[in-house]
Amino acid sequence: MSAKPPRAHVLPIRVYYEDTDAQGVVYHANYLRFAERGRSEWLRELGTNHERLLDEHGIVFAARRCVIDYLAPARLDDLIEVRSTALEIGRTRLVMDQRILRGGEEIARIEVALVCVGRDGRAVRIPTGLRQAIAAAGVPETGRRG
Amino acid sequence: MSAKPPRAHVLPIRVYYEDTDAQGVVYHANYLRFAERGRSEWLRELGTNHERLLDEHGIVFAARRCVIDYLAPARLDDLIEVRSTALEIGRTRLVMDQRILRGGEEIARIEVALVCVGRDGRAVRIPTGLRQAIAAAGVPETGRRG
Amino acid sequence: MSAKPPRAHVLPIRVYYEDTDAQGVVYHANYLRFAERGRSEWLRELGTNHERLLDEHGIVFAARRCVIDYLAPARLDDLIEVRSTALEIGRTRLVMDQRILRGGEEIARIEVALVCVGRDGRAVRIPTGLRQAIAAAGVPETGRRG
Amino acid sequence: MSAKPPRAHVLPIRVYYEDTDAQGVVYHANYLRFAERGRSEWLRELGTNHERLLDEHGIVFAARRCVIDYLAPARLDDLIEVRSTALEIGRTRLVMDQRILRGGEEIARIEVALVCVGRDGRAVRIPTGLRQAIAAAGVPETGRRG
Repeated sequence: MSAKPPRAHVLPIRVYYEDTDAQGVVYHANYLRFAERGRSEWLRELGTNHERLLDEHGIVFAARRCVIDYLAPARLDDLIEVRSTALEIGRTRLVMDQRILRGGEEIARIEVALVCVGRDGRAVRIPTGLRQAIAAAGVPETGRRG
Repeated sequence: MSAKPPRAHVLPIRVYYEDTDAQGVVYHANYLRFAERGRSEWLRELGTNHERLLDEHGIVFAARRCVIDYLAPARLDDLIEVRSTALEIGRTRLVMDQRILRGGEEIARIEVALVCVGRDGRAVRIPTGLRQAIAAAGVPETGRRG
Repeated sequence: MSAKPPRAHVLPIRVYYEDTDAQGVVYHANYLRFAERGRSEWLRELGTNHERLLDEHGIVFAARRCVIDYLAPARLDDLIEVRSTALEIGRTRLVMDQRILRGGEEIARIEVALVCVGRDGRAVRIPTGLRQAIAAAGVPETGRRG
Repeated sequence: MSAKPPRAHVLPIRVYYEDTDAQGVVYHANYLRFAERGRSEWLRELGTNHERLLDEHGIVFAARRCVIDYLAPARLDDLIEVRSTALEIGRTRLVMDQRILRGGEEIARIEVALVCVGRDGRAVRIPTGLRQAIAAAGVPETGRRG
């Protein structure tokens, strides 16, 4: 258990043409791409990555639910950042809170629930080492006896 | 007011390599692309399209909130369909329910809240003709005096 | 050997927001996505698809070279078509000519050289049945004894 | 005229799930996205960016031709780099040579011809300051009296 909230992982991202659409702003689906980049780097900071999780443990994290609130549009050439914080870590489930900011202003808010699945797509336990590393960062654990 | 629910607009979509990722399934953000294709065709069936809304009315629909539930993964070469139904239509706001199906099985569920905005990004009234066409299809209206 | 050139496979494609960028036109890389959709449907018309080629033969087609000439920009809501013709079929190699048209006007021209590779990424023979089906459509064969 | 070739601009890029496809490698069209990121950062290093070119000069750079040679596939979690060098700068035309490398190995080679166009899509002169900045870096000029 942790008294202070877990530190957010911060990933700076530049907005390129590929991210924008004919409305002149970032295409709404691409905030999910930015959030996924943030989670990948957060995972790397924890000492692992997708390739290793698949090779060593036969697992991937699959999105089960995403909720996105769009507060203000990002535009071409903007420098934005993704702030990623794990909200809770369970036996097979991980919930992340991700904020997209530009110059301190929050422009999008994303909550993603992920499930750890094996090669057959079935939910499996998050590897103990990874779960402990996440919990050690102050993330509340759920279903500990699970 | 309508006794029966509005008919869903159905758009068939084929899954190509561009839609998939290294997990061998459709990349999670791409369900939002599929849903947006569905809304575009739903709009076309109502007699308009994005270009005309911008040229004639100076408006676009911007996503304010998306909630996506992933039920089962779509895969390369799958033929899926997007079923789009308007849930409610307000003065400036439109809420859509969109289901992704494969062979009758629901594989994703998306609820999108959109706001009609002008070229400056501020919320403006949905053009009367479009609002009436949507309401005529049995979609509940909100904030009618707005 | 064939006296008349092989018939082009035609795939109609609608341009959506996801395809455009802040220049208000289709993002240049997306013409390769359209071309790949065209090749996938051309393959399906020949009686196979990517999943089957991988499951039954352990092969995929990998791009070795793409040359794209951009003649005129496609825009949001445009209805375009991809015309795909095989230029030559070899032991492991396939060259396709693909044109993007809008209302009869050619707006992009793409030549793609593909190689048939196994799961380890090495070039392997194109399955005989597929090669024969392509050649039967009037596509010149190269390296027949190969 | 310059005795030594212009220095390449180097942009490191991490490969994420969004970049890959069901073949387990980077989707072929995405190398053009990587190359475009490289050109955007090269432009920024020259003291400008897309927004400014459009706001101050009313211009954008539009791709006229891309040639891509795929030498080896990039994979999930790879750290690659884009090396961008201008090959020649003309009155309205810019040709770039771009190489994608991974750990020193060249995995893709891209040549892009761009044309400077105004809001109406017609070719216009590259702004003098930008042209001079590019030429000053040792890039051969073509059609100087043009």
